[in-house]
Amino acid sequence: MKTDLANSFVEALREVLTTTNGFIPLHEPRVGELEKEYVSDCIESTFVSSVGKYVDRFEQEIAEYTGAKRAIAVVNGTAALHISLLLSGVQKGDEVLIPGLTFVATSNAVSYCGASPHFVDSEEDTLGVDPIKLDEYLSEISYISEDSCINKNTGKKISAIVPVHIFGHPCKIHEIVEVAAKYKITLVEDAAESLGSFYQDKHTGTFGKFGSISFNGNKIITTGGGGMIITDDDQLADQAKHITTTAKVPHRWDYVHDQVGFNYRMPNLNAAFGCAQLQNLEKFLASKRQLFAKYEEVFQKFDFASILKEPSGCRSNYWLQTMMLHKPDKSLKEVLLSSLNEAGFMSRPAWTGIHKLNPFQNCPRMDMYTLENLEQKIINLPSSAFLSEKS
Amino acid sequence: MKTDLANSFVEALREVLTTTNGFIPLHEPRVGELEKEYVSDCIESTFVSSVGKYVDRFEQEIAEYTGAKRAIAVVNGTAALHISLLLSGVQKGDEVLIPGLTFVATSNAVSYCGASPHFVDSEEDTLGVDPIKLDEYLSEISYISEDSCINKNTGKKISAIVPVHIFGHPCKIHEIVEVAAKYKITLVEDAAESLGSFYQDKHTGTFGKFGSISFNGNKIITTGGGGMIITDDDQLADQAKHITTTAKVPHRWDYVHDQVGFNYRMPNLNAAFGCAQLQNLEKFLASKRQLFAKYEEVFQKFDFASILKEPSGCRSNYWLQTMMLHKPDKSLKEVLLSSLNEAGFMSRPAWTGIHKLNPFQNCPRMDMYTLENLEQKIINLPSSAFLSEKS
Repeated sequence: MKTDLANSFVEALREVLTTTNGFIPLHEPRVGELEKEYVSDCIESTFVSSVGKYVDRFEQEIAEYTGAKRAIAVVNGTAALHISLLLSGVQKGDEVLIPGLTFVATSNAVSYCGASPHFVDSEEDTLGVDPIKLDEYLSEISYISEDSCINKNTGKKISAIVPVHIFGHPCKIHEIVEVAAKYKITLVEDAAESLGSFYQDKHTGTFGKFGSISFNGNKIITTGGGGMIITDDDQLADQAKHITTTAKVPHRWDYVHDQVGFNYRMPNLNAAFGCAQLQNLEKFLASKRQLFAKYEEVFQKFDFASILKEPSGCRSNYWLQTMMLHKPDKSLKEVLLSSLNEAGFMSRPAWTGIHKLNPFQNCPRMDMYTLENLEQKIINLPSSAFLSEKS
Repeated sequence: MKTDLANSFVEALREVLTTTNGFIPLHEPRVGELEKEYVSDCIESTFVSSVGKYVDRFEQEIAEYTGAKRAIAVVNGTAALHISLLLSGVQKGDEVLIPGLTFVATSNAVSYCGASPHFVDSEEDTLGVDPIKLDEYLSEISYISEDSCINKNTGKKISAIVPVHIFGHPCKIHEIVEVAAKYKITLVEDAAESLGSFYQDKHTGTFGKFGSISFNGNKIITTGGGGMIITDDDQLADQAKHITTTAKVPHRWDYVHDQVGFNYRMPNLNAAFGCAQLQNLEKFLASKRQLFAKYEEVFQKFDFASILKEPSGCRSNYWLQTMMLHKPDKSLKEVLLSSLNEAGFMSRPAWTGIHKLNPFQNCPRMDMYTLENLEQKIINLPSSAFLSEKS
């Protein structure tokens, strides 16, 4: 019976998502002549590497678009988050609050700082960190000492929190900012998935000390591989540029580096590609919103699941379209994933809760009740911008 | 008088290095239609990100060219070295022997592992690690315990050594391999600068457990930003691929990561560029050898300095052409650097000895007598492949 349901759902999808070939990827980049033009121009200039006009332009345009004062282009979203955490003062032995429901990069970036992730639960509406549960939890397990938040159980400093805007949907960032402030915890936003997503007209990633954005191949716009650090703090922005470019002290010819730096520069070649992509962002956003509407239509015919809508008061980029089963149902989820993927509609479940992965299973966490349910409810459906345009 | 000497040297250079404009960069990439063709093809495929045919092809072609069994494309040379050290078993608290004369990335990669660089001196002929001095030093300051080399002074394990082929000139890698084996120290080669350089017909980077190569914009071939890990060990190669691609366990849709991984993938866009560059490597090598010959001519007119020749029995890629003053002379070096750069011949001294930089000044080291002298003797001259072709 579950198989029948899955098959009729697949048929319903087939009616609205027409494609030229049998296979529909989860998220395919949309590229055109402009990308080739900018990249060719970059190649002709021979400035294909770590400096060049496209890097400067891409940084400036992302700053303008997001409303952040400064933007620093880096090699990927993981690097952006790593440096954001380092420059927020996260130190070896600290704990950093992150949701269990996120891509593993969030957790890895914490590890690179020598800190331990400390996992918090998510909520149903936004899939983001639950601010009420967070507040209750911190009131139980932490105390403030010398303006720092200390975990009573481990004795370690909880130095930062990294809310994530899951699948592009803004989390309750305003409330989370308030909780973070109450407990003296620095907030860094993982906006890897949410370029083009706004919380009450303010772009995601601009609520904390830093925001980090990803331009990986599966994101709403891509640079092949790439990321961006955004911040309103000029001094921190300068430090971010310095430490991501091997911490070299400017000099006409001498090579002096004043700290352990990183080779996290975005090549000009990739920035050229990104500048072209960014020019089409509004078009992509419109297409993805249209795709959401198409999915809404499909789900009107079914009562076992719905498509996740942007939170009230927010504008989501609808990066990954998200089917939500009305009840947690592991076997239905598996049947649907099988049927969808076999029919060529590339679909995936939510990530396995990061707190359950081998490298992080001994890290501190609150009870993850909601996440455990969400894991058996979420399926991401094909989300490429062009899917709504072709049909 | 030093100014007169510098000026007449500049005039002599001007006679052999003709250029279309006034400014000659230290090392400019050579690009052509092939780069645009491959990159456009990559863009049209929409596979611009972390997987794609150009990544596979570039890996295969670098393996073939170097004679290594396997090659793993990564985001830059620093990342290649970082992962090579991690997979060689370098652990937190260990020491890793590296030359003081190298780019800061060598030292940074050691730091990322939580290990401490332990600096060793270089020798005049090759600018690489001095194997005789190394052997004497280790016999004094270390002992073997349970098949590991222990630093008597710090009590720490010396787990690896990273010889570097400076400016593309092969170091005495055969002798260094022997010393490393004698003291049970794992050898990882930093071949960032030496693609196309051979030690007795064997490519640099293939003598140790791993070799790391850089394709930064200033290297003999570039991918914008990029690097390669090479190794003859299939198992280590698989591990390197796994850990540089977020350590995701293969599955049709589930997201499970079995260790703290890294986002060190080379985008297909950059690999496409690299494949085009690699097709011209032999041409670049010939041009750079020709440029060396031109410099040799120039230096026949002067008796204060010479141009560094490839070590006997080796074939160097002549990545950076290197003027060697016959005697250490700081003020002459500075006058030459001023005159050269003011005349538009972009030139630079050797890197400041890494052991003297702030972040590494408290790390262990042997006496750095030769390096201290070399620092006052070395000037890198304009080295772009096309400089010999145009005149």
